[in-house]
Amino acid sequence: MRGDVITDGDSERLARAALSRAVGSDKPGISVEVAHRGAAAVWADLRHRHPDVDPEDDLRLLARLGGRIVCPGDSEWPDALDVLGRMSAATQAEPGEPLALWVHGSGNLGQLCERAVAVVGSRAATAYGTTVAADLASGLADRGWTVVSGAAFGIDAAAHRGALAAGGPTIAVLAGGVDVAYPRAHADLLGRIRENGLLLSEAPPGSLPYRGRFLTRNRIIAGLTRGTVLVEAGHRSGALNTARHARGLGRVVMAVPGPVTSALSVGCHRLLRTHREQTVLVTDAAEVCEEIGVIGELAGYSPAPTGLRDGLSELVRRLLDVMPARASVGAAVLAERVGERPQTVQALMGPLVAEGLVELRADGYRLTALGRAPSATNGS
Amino acid sequence: MRGDVITDGDSERLARAALSRAVGSDKPGISVEVAHRGAAAVWADLRHRHPDVDPEDDLRLLARLGGRIVCPGDSEWPDALDVLGRMSAATQAEPGEPLALWVHGSGNLGQLCERAVAVVGSRAATAYGTTVAADLASGLADRGWTVVSGAAFGIDAAAHRGALAAGGPTIAVLAGGVDVAYPRAHADLLGRIRENGLLLSEAPPGSLPYRGRFLTRNRIIAGLTRGTVLVEAGHRSGALNTARHARGLGRVVMAVPGPVTSALSVGCHRLLRTHREQTVLVTDAAEVCEEIGVIGELAGYSPAPTGLRDGLSELVRRLLDVMPARASVGAAVLAERVGERPQTVQALMGPLVAEGLVELRADGYRLTALGRAPSATNGS
Repeated sequence: MRGDVITDGDSERLARAALSRAVGSDKPGISVEVAHRGAAAVWADLRHRHPDVDPEDDLRLLARLGGRIVCPGDSEWPDALDVLGRMSAATQAEPGEPLALWVHGSGNLGQLCERAVAVVGSRAATAYGTTVAADLASGLADRGWTVVSGAAFGIDAAAHRGALAAGGPTIAVLAGGVDVAYPRAHADLLGRIRENGLLLSEAPPGSLPYRGRFLTRNRIIAGLTRGTVLVEAGHRSGALNTARHARGLGRVVMAVPGPVTSALSVGCHRLLRTHREQTVLVTDAAEVCEEIGVIGELAGYSPAPTGLRDGLSELVRRLLDVMPARASVGAAVLAERVGERPQTVQALMGPLVAEGLVELRADGYRLTALGRAPSATNGS
Repeated sequence: MRGDVITDGDSERLARAALSRAVGSDKPGISVEVAHRGAAAVWADLRHRHPDVDPEDDLRLLARLGGRIVCPGDSEWPDALDVLGRMSAATQAEPGEPLALWVHGSGNLGQLCERAVAVVGSRAATAYGTTVAADLASGLADRGWTVVSGAAFGIDAAAHRGALAAGGPTIAVLAGGVDVAYPRAHADLLGRIRENGLLLSEAPPGSLPYRGRFLTRNRIIAGLTRGTVLVEAGHRSGALNTARHARGLGRVVMAVPGPVTSALSVGCHRLLRTHREQTVLVTDAAEVCEEIGVIGELAGYSPAPTGLRDGLSELVRRLLDVMPARASVGAAVLAERVGERPQTVQALMGPLVAEGLVELRADGYRLTALGRAPSATNGS
């Protein structure tokens, strides 16, 4: 919790806090510039234009509430978010890795995100949707997964409540500051999430949420998690935006179907129809775990290492076999090498990256040190 | 209707009728043997074992009822079934092409099957399922498609009724003889299907349905149609068997989702999940047409078949999909259906009318026979 103490060595951290207040952590290009030049240098160029920005004050305010700031490189920083930085470095048109995350709650962000799954959906959910979302979240919490959502009305709230009901931790990624109860009717719910998990935001304390931030916030929900489950989504639901981010990051995208007579399932059905290869239909927590858990369950929990090879799918083993350790190659090349479709290969990359066996570089994928270790692929 | 008249030249036809009575048209290997040696030769070897089989009597009985027998090679024989023969020749373990189809009704089998789609599902359907099946079938009939199903309780009956309600023809493929009203409660429905389409079976008149025949019958439902839509199916629904046949025959397999809380949608969801690449989620008739119709609709109109798919715009294809074959609708309604401005749609109508695909009536536009014709879909 380095954010509690401000020292001279924290100038990078202070500059990140200042920049997230002054220009916004979700400004396209800012995180790439900071990665190249360092936050202090970028802030030094800009601070004269923002005389009223006082990052020490922000950090003090948050610390007084019991919160903290978490920056890239901190032990608590979730590795899963690194992909946002690499994606942004490639395009620069989209918001990249957050400059910092303002965090409030009892959980350790990095640990909670080691096994995290997003459950999102429409605000105007039906009773069917909220029931399914709550059941799903409870089942995921029971299986040791952290449920991540956006604390909005409808599906989001049901997901948080389901996780809490099962005694599991849950993370709310907010569009405004972590000290701003929004929506106001969720003040109690936000309090319980804080006590049993985390509230987090890339917006500094006191920030009010606005439309643009709801959308850029969605990339963090997708980025923190191994997969995103869409429970109910209307024709133009913002939850579809989260699913799009997850797909773009190579994470698993899942959707729960509903009655075709319900306008609130239209978005889920369209996703399953038009992005068939990259969207999996799921109906319960066990099926979600099947999609996001396989590789992890194998690597982490197998008591008998020899079982690993049996558990890892044949395709995953072949993929690891043809993946270079020094150069990087794209999913299309890998697909050709294993004789599968690019979409199929792409869908496996998210879990492999999340598991730490593969890393995404600017020009493609390559094996990590862990992925090169024989134990990763042959159980020795 | 050659079955009405029995001459010496009908010995092959008589032998097929005899064999379907004596050994069963769905006996694995029989159709391959008949294809190789001829039905008369096969029957000559077997007839001493079946002294009570009298095919002339069967044909006379059926003719008296107004029915007929249709055999491979007859003008009315649906080409789509040929694939069953080829599949069977390869494996010999499964029932192959029917030896003959016993047919009763007003429609021409070959013509009706040029644009046919199967709508099948559980007997123990819910109100949701029967409503969706009926709407789907009506929408398909409106677009000039023949709805094929199995006349069972639940989804099958709803599909036939939906097609009939829209004034479209429908085909019931029965497990027993076409003169056996099964289920008995469907006697009236079967009568209406006969008047507005066809009852057909590979079992000779008077045959009672039994379990094995329900399953082998499913290959005919799948074989007659360009695609199979599964509306509701429980864990072990027989409709899943039809879907399996359709997949095996390379036809389009579609499934309608439902609430994940419904046991009657479990089969549909499992299919969408476990056979993701070969199963398309559909929610209405327009989406079904998109899967089974689009590519074909294009092929027929191009002077240069290869260029056609690229040439016809996506919007034109959608327009043809939402245009009714029987009623007429105005450009404004069409515009709403495809989500475009009336002016945009209006501008496309001239060329479509000029091509003869659409005709302008007093009260709007509708598809022409050419627009509906199979040649519009496969370029033949």
